[in-house]
Amino acid sequence: MAEPLVSPERIEADYLVETAFDPRAAIEAMAGEQSSGTFVPVPGETPELKARSAARIEALEILGEVDTPSLPGAGQPPGSRIQRARATLSWPLANMGPSLPNLMATVGGNLFELKQFSGLRILDMRLPTAFADAYPGPKFGIAGTRRLAGVEGRPLIGTIVKPSVGFGPEETADLVRLLAGAGIDFIKDDELQADGPHCPFDERVRAVMRVVNQAADKTGKKVMFAFNLTGEIDEMRRRHDLVLAEGGTCVMASLNSVGLAGMIALGRHSALPIHAHRNGWGYLSRAPMLGWSYVAWQKFWRLAGADHMHVNGLANKFSEPDDSVIASARACLTPMFAEKPCIVMPVFSSGQTVKQPPATFAALGSIDLIYAAGGGIMAHPDGPAAGVASLRQSWDAAIAGVPLDQQAQTHPELARALGAGA
Amino acid sequence: MAEPLVSPERIEADYLVETAFDPRAAIEAMAGEQSSGTFVPVPGETPELKARSAARIEALEILGEVDTPSLPGAGQPPGSRIQRARATLSWPLANMGPSLPNLMATVGGNLFELKQFSGLRILDMRLPTAFADAYPGPKFGIAGTRRLAGVEGRPLIGTIVKPSVGFGPEETADLVRLLAGAGIDFIKDDELQADGPHCPFDERVRAVMRVVNQAADKTGKKVMFAFNLTGEIDEMRRRHDLVLAEGGTCVMASLNSVGLAGMIALGRHSALPIHAHRNGWGYLSRAPMLGWSYVAWQKFWRLAGADHMHVNGLANKFSEPDDSVIASARACLTPMFAEKPCIVMPVFSSGQTVKQPPATFAALGSIDLIYAAGGGIMAHPDGPAAGVASLRQSWDAAIAGVPLDQQAQTHPELARALGAGA
Repeated sequence: MAEPLVSPERIEADYLVETAFDPRAAIEAMAGEQSSGTFVPVPGETPELKARSAARIEALEILGEVDTPSLPGAGQPPGSRIQRARATLSWPLANMGPSLPNLMATVGGNLFELKQFSGLRILDMRLPTAFADAYPGPKFGIAGTRRLAGVEGRPLIGTIVKPSVGFGPEETADLVRLLAGAGIDFIKDDELQADGPHCPFDERVRAVMRVVNQAADKTGKKVMFAFNLTGEIDEMRRRHDLVLAEGGTCVMASLNSVGLAGMIALGRHSALPIHAHRNGWGYLSRAPMLGWSYVAWQKFWRLAGADHMHVNGLANKFSEPDDSVIASARACLTPMFAEKPCIVMPVFSSGQTVKQPPATFAALGSIDLIYAAGGGIMAHPDGPAAGVASLRQSWDAAIAGVPLDQQAQTHPELARALGAGA
Repeated sequence: MAEPLVSPERIEADYLVETAFDPRAAIEAMAGEQSSGTFVPVPGETPELKARSAARIEALEILGEVDTPSLPGAGQPPGSRIQRARATLSWPLANMGPSLPNLMATVGGNLFELKQFSGLRILDMRLPTAFADAYPGPKFGIAGTRRLAGVEGRPLIGTIVKPSVGFGPEETADLVRLLAGAGIDFIKDDELQADGPHCPFDERVRAVMRVVNQAADKTGKKVMFAFNLTGEIDEMRRRHDLVLAEGGTCVMASLNSVGLAGMIALGRHSALPIHAHRNGWGYLSRAPMLGWSYVAWQKFWRLAGADHMHVNGLANKFSEPDDSVIASARACLTPMFAEKPCIVMPVFSSGQTVKQPPATFAALGSIDLIYAAGGGIMAHPDGPAAGVASLRQSWDAAIAGVPLDQQAQTHPELARALGAGA
C-alpha cells in the first residue's frame, strides 16, 4: 500500500529530535528556518506571502527525557530538561516543485545545525505524486532484474570481485569464469574499483563479458555482472553504453560518490538495471541522534532510478544491528506511490553465509532480494560450485520452513558448509 | 605553502578513530577493507598483487582513553579499554586514478561502518598533483570574484534574499533594488529557492538582472548576485547560460543536493564564479567522533570548481564553535597544490553583525572573504544603506586595528548599529 499524505500538494517529513528548549517552540524554529521564516521584518513580506509558503507542524509527540545532550553545540536554558520528540513537518510542494535536489535542501538542509537541537535525525518522508511523474524511478526493479538474470522463485545468489583492487581485467575475468562455472547468479565489482589504471573499465568490461557470454552460450544462463561505472556524468553514460553494447545486464554506481544530480542523469539515461552502492552510509547514519534513517534516504535514490539497493545483512561484519537491516530492506519493498511503487531489490551482503537465510526470510517475508556472499562461496571446502549450491539449499530450506540441520541431512554441500563453519 | 606528500604517487588521509581493539590491528583492518584486503584466499591473488595495491599505515598516534564508546555497534573485547588515536593511511594513486568520485569511495566509503571502531572521522587528506591536472578547480577564486564585484582591499559585504521562500520574481527584484541602492556588494538566493513554481528561475534571473544592470549603469557598481541554480545537470547548465547571457556574475549550487558528479559537470561548464552552499553540512559533521572535518571535505569541492565556500561565522546562530569556523576558513585559504592552489573565498554568514569583524580579522588574518549579514543590514535603525555602511566601518576598524567604540565616535552608522544591539 502506498503511503497516505495529509494533503496531495504537501511534502511531509518525520524527525526524531532532542532539545532543551520547549519542543514546540524548537520545532517552530526549524519550520521557519526551512521555509518562510525571517529574523527581522523585510520590505515586501506580507502575512499572506509567509502563510502561503510556511512549513506546518503536523504532529509532535514527546518521547521522554535524557540526562545529557547527544550532540555538542546546542543551547541549554538554565534549569531546562532535555526532551526527545518525534515531529512531522509539512511543506507546500509549490515551495520547490517536484525537484529531488531542492527537496534535499528543504528536508535535509541547514536544520541539522540548529542550536535548538542536541539531536536531529530524519526518519521518513512522504511525497506528492508529482515526484512520481517527474522522475524515472527504477526501470527494472524486481521483475526486470529476475528476467535478465533468469532467476525466479528464490533470491539471486551473488558475490563480489575480491581483492577489491589488485586484479587486472584478465584476472577479474578468470575469477568470473570460475564463478559462472559454479552457477552464480550475480557478481558485482568492488566499490573501490571503477576505472583504475591497473584495471581500466573498458578492458574489464570486454574481458568479463567475453567470459559471461561464453558461459551463457554454453549453459543458457547469463550471469548478471554489475560493472562499477562510478565517475563523472559523461564517463558514466559512455561506460553504460559500452556495457550495453557488450551484452552486459547491469551497471553499478556509488551513490555518495556520484550524488543526486549524477544519479538522476544516469537513471534517465540507463537501459540497464542500476545496482546502487551505499558506501559512506556510515557517516550519514551511525550516530543515532543525527543524520538519516535509511527509510527516508533510500526514497531519493529509488526515484532517481536505482534498481538494487544495499542494506547490509543479518549478523553482518559492520556495526549495524539486525532490526535496522530488516527495516531498510522492508523500506525497499514498500511502494512509494500507488501508481508507481518504485520497488527496488534489497541487496544483503557483508559476512553472509548459509546460516542467515532462515532468519532473513522469517524477518523479511520475501524472496525478492540479492543475497551476496564472499567467503560463503569461495571458502567452501569443496569449492565455489559447492558454495553456491549450499547457499541455494539454505534458501530452499528457509522458504520451505525446513530447519537447516534437517535440510543438511539430504544436501551434502549445505552439510559441508555448516560443518566448516562457513 | 602547498602540502607535502609522503610520495607523489600516493593519496593520504588522516583519521581520528576510537577503538576497543588494539589500535594498530584495527587500523590494519581499515586499510585492508579500503584496499586489497580479502577475508578468504581468492584464486589469482598473489602477494605481489596485494602488495601493489595495499593501503599503508603512515602514522599512528595514541591520544588517550575514554570511558564509553562514542558510537553504538562497535565490538568490545572483554576487559578492553577504549582508546582514541590519530592515524594516517596512504593508497597508491593507481588504485583509482585521479578521479574524485572514486577517491570518495576510497577515503570516505565503507570504513565508517567497521565494527572495530566506536568513532571514525576523516580529518584531512592530501592528493597527488595528478588531481590538479584532472580537475578545473576554482576558475575565479578570490581575484576573479573581486574583479567581477569591483571590491578591493576589504571583504565583500553580502546578504541573502529573505524570506527564503514566498517572494516571487518581482518581489525579489524589489528587494535587490533596495539593497543595490544601499551599496551592497553581494546578494545570494536562499538555498531553499531554486526554481519553485512561485519564483521560477528564469523569471527571477530576468527580473533581478534588470535591476542589477540598471543600478550598474547608474553607479558603475554591479552587485554580484548568486542565483541558486541547484537542480539536474542539464537544468544547471541551461540556467548558468541564462545568468551569463543576462549579464549576471555568479551562480550558486547546494553541494549536498547536487553531489560530486553534478558539481564537477557544473565546474567544467561554468564561465561564472560558483557560490557553493553547504546546507546539510550538519549531518556530515556534527557528531564529533563521526563523519567529516571540513578541512578534508572542502578539498573535493574546490577541485570540482567551487569559488566560494560557506564556513558559518563567529558567534553564529548554529551549533558550530568559533575555532571550527576559523579552521574551516583557513582551510579555504590554504593552497592545495604548489602549481594550482585552488584557493576559494570563505563565506561568513549566520547571525553576522557589526560586532564580529574585529575578532574575525584577528583570528583569520585575511580580508579575502564574503561577510554576509541579514538582520545586520535590514534591521539597521536608519535603513539598509546605513546597515551596509556600518558593516564596512566595522571592517575598516578591524583591518586598521581601531577598537569599534573608538571607530563609532566618528562613524554614526556604526554607532547606531552598536547602540541598536544589531
